Amino acid sequence: MFVTTIYGKNDVRYEEAPDPQLSTGTDAIVKVVASCVCGSDLWRYRGVQPVKEPTRIGHEFVGIVESIGDRVGKIKVGDFVIASFYDCDMTCINCRNGFSTSCLERGAWGARDHFGAFADGGQGEYVRVPHADGTLVATPEQPSEELIPQLLTLADVFGTGHHAAISAGVTQGSNVVVVGDGAVGLSGVLAASRLGAARIVLMSRHADRQNLGRDFGATDIVAERGDDGIAAVTALFDGIGADAVLECVGTKESMDQALRSARPGGQVGFVGVPAGGAELPISQLFRSNVGVRGGVAPVRNYIDELLPEVWNGSLTPGRVFDLTLPLSEVAEAYAAMDERRAIKVLLQP
Amino acid sequence: MFVTTIYGKNDVRYEEAPDPQLSTGTDAIVKVVASCVCGSDLWRYRGVQPVKEPTRIGHEFVGIVESIGDRVGKIKVGDFVIASFYDCDMTCINCRNGFSTSCLERGAWGARDHFGAFADGGQGEYVRVPHADGTLVATPEQPSEELIPQLLTLADVFGTGHHAAISAGVTQGSNVVVVGDGAVGLSGVLAASRLGAARIVLMSRHADRQNLGRDFGATDIVAERGDDGIAAVTALFDGIGADAVLECVGTKESMDQALRSARPGGQVGFVGVPAGGAELPISQLFRSNVGVRGGVAPVRNYIDELLPEVWNGSLTPGRVFDLTLPLSEVAEAYAAMDERRAIKVLLQP
Repeated sequence: MFVTTIYGKNDVRYEEAPDPQLSTGTDAIVKVVASCVCGSDLWRYRGVQPVKEPTRIGHEFVGIVESIGDRVGKIKVGDFVIASFYDCDMTCINCRNGFSTSCLERGAWGARDHFGAFADGGQGEYVRVPHADGTLVATPEQPSEELIPQLLTLADVFGTGHHAAISAGVTQGSNVVVVGDGAVGLSGVLAASRLGAARIVLMSRHADRQNLGRDFGATDIVAERGDDGIAAVTALFDGIGADAVLECVGTKESMDQALRSARPGGQVGFVGVPAGGAELPISQLFRSNVGVRGGVAPVRNYIDELLPEVWNGSLTPGRVFDLTLPLSEVAEAYAAMDERRAIKVLLQP
Repeated sequence: MFVTTIYGKNDVRYEEAPDPQLSTGTDAIVKVVASCVCGSDLWRYRGVQPVKEPTRIGHEFVGIVESIGDRVGKIKVGDFVIASFYDCDMTCINCRNGFSTSCLERGAWGARDHFGAFADGGQGEYVRVPHADGTLVATPEQPSEELIPQLLTLADVFGTGHHAAISAGVTQGSNVVVVGDGAVGLSGVLAASRLGAARIVLMSRHADRQNLGRDFGATDIVAERGDDGIAAVTALFDGIGADAVLECVGTKESMDQALRSARPGGQVGFVGVPAGGAELPISQLFRSNVGVRGGVAPVRNYIDELLPEVWNGSLTPGRVFDLTLPLSEVAEAYAAMDERRAIKVLLQP
């Protein structure tokens, strides 16, 4: 089969690899229908994270189940399935607590699973999925073409935006700020709107992202950053800041922006993968009583709640995909996202 | 009148100072009936925080209103009142949001108030209280002798323990760990118990504190610290840690203990004043989805909720006072707390 392998900075290749084989009894082979590139994939592509050896890449995909292990009970051959961006059993105590990202048998795509077998990367033609009954969610029936990008967002990006909103404590009537206008930030706008936020400020300097943000529910746009950005945000919220701030970038600057945009007693929900060196200033938090909560999003736990509204078309989170390419052009997909020519690229094997 | 002034490390003096005078129209003069020493007072006493010039000290007191400014409406001469450990108007947006510690007109004891007039320290015979209608809460009637220490805890220590529990998200059935067996930690045990925690582990190495902790609702005691302490705690909670952890110390070590005692997706409520240099490790929080929330406790906002149960005797948070001294022996009060001969010392002017 053809897959995507990252070799190093700016070096992503479409190449052949062995077909996956069932091996643990609880796994499944999925034929990928759609995959995509994540902002976090760019960290290795940009050289921010080193690539020690050629590594299979991609962790967001939907597809059709080709075969299943003999102990798979819920998932069936032929099912259209959404994979979460990690594998999990959904039976351990952390999964049951709502934090499947801390599954006691958690594994990652493009790596050895909990049992030592290989789980393929998501940017490929086929993927061996460990813990098929836990990791995969089957849709009610085969989806239409138009639904596929929408469903794909449940694998990571929309669930991650939702986690930012949940972690920030967004609820009916909240005043919200979203830091970051990438696909996750825009998903956070949609999630906050869905949760009933009264006012949503999107911090963005790009017209296309501002427009999509408005469609997703942003009521205000702030283009300034740093002190000017904070001044603009606090001016919108009684001079004190927002109830809930979604940090969807992961840099020291963006976290500072987020913390200082929250009102005393407000809450920052963060999902941006922390980019080195940024620790949280505890004295600042202590003085302001601003809470911080978030992390790697347990999207698998959110699919049951979010899928119905995506399936019936009332939510269209797939609008974050503004470019679709064949998987063979995966290198161009990375370049387009790296150069901000695209918000998020969908790949078709 | 006689007051307490801190001159520097290990140098607290009982000395004369001018009687306070009403000055802003919204203030009151309170004759102090009981005051006490706070763990945070020890920071200057121990030289951890420098004392730049002789400073009036003490921020917890109850007493009787002697006189009021002409614009004071709720508080009356003769009322028995509880002061919060800061002054606040209770009308600004932050006060209304539940965070009176961020009152837009907030002031501190032993310092100039928002209007530039002097607010006395709490460890003295009389205190001029700015924002009397906001800062002070009158009890339903004159309290009995036995009730006075109980009421005094609402000025800071019990409200601060309650804030730790609230910030950690303690609710009916929670599994809880309390880091710190000082008066605040013990108050946190009582607060968590009141909120319905199923199991409360107190980390303590002192028999007298362990005993009071048990009386306050601790179900388990862990004497170990560091890795051994964390291993003992996680073993008690399904191998994953507690839902809610109350950090009631403020050191780097205690915060580390707290963060690592929480389960994935758990929450740390922190009220220990951060002692220099401890920043929060964002990558660790990201991986575990452990939230952190807390800070300087808005105890004024909690008095309405907590007072009835203290007044009717169903809560006895005043048991944290294990030594009572006349105000003239305030230097001995500091020494007793510094040397851990007392958990918390009550002072009678």
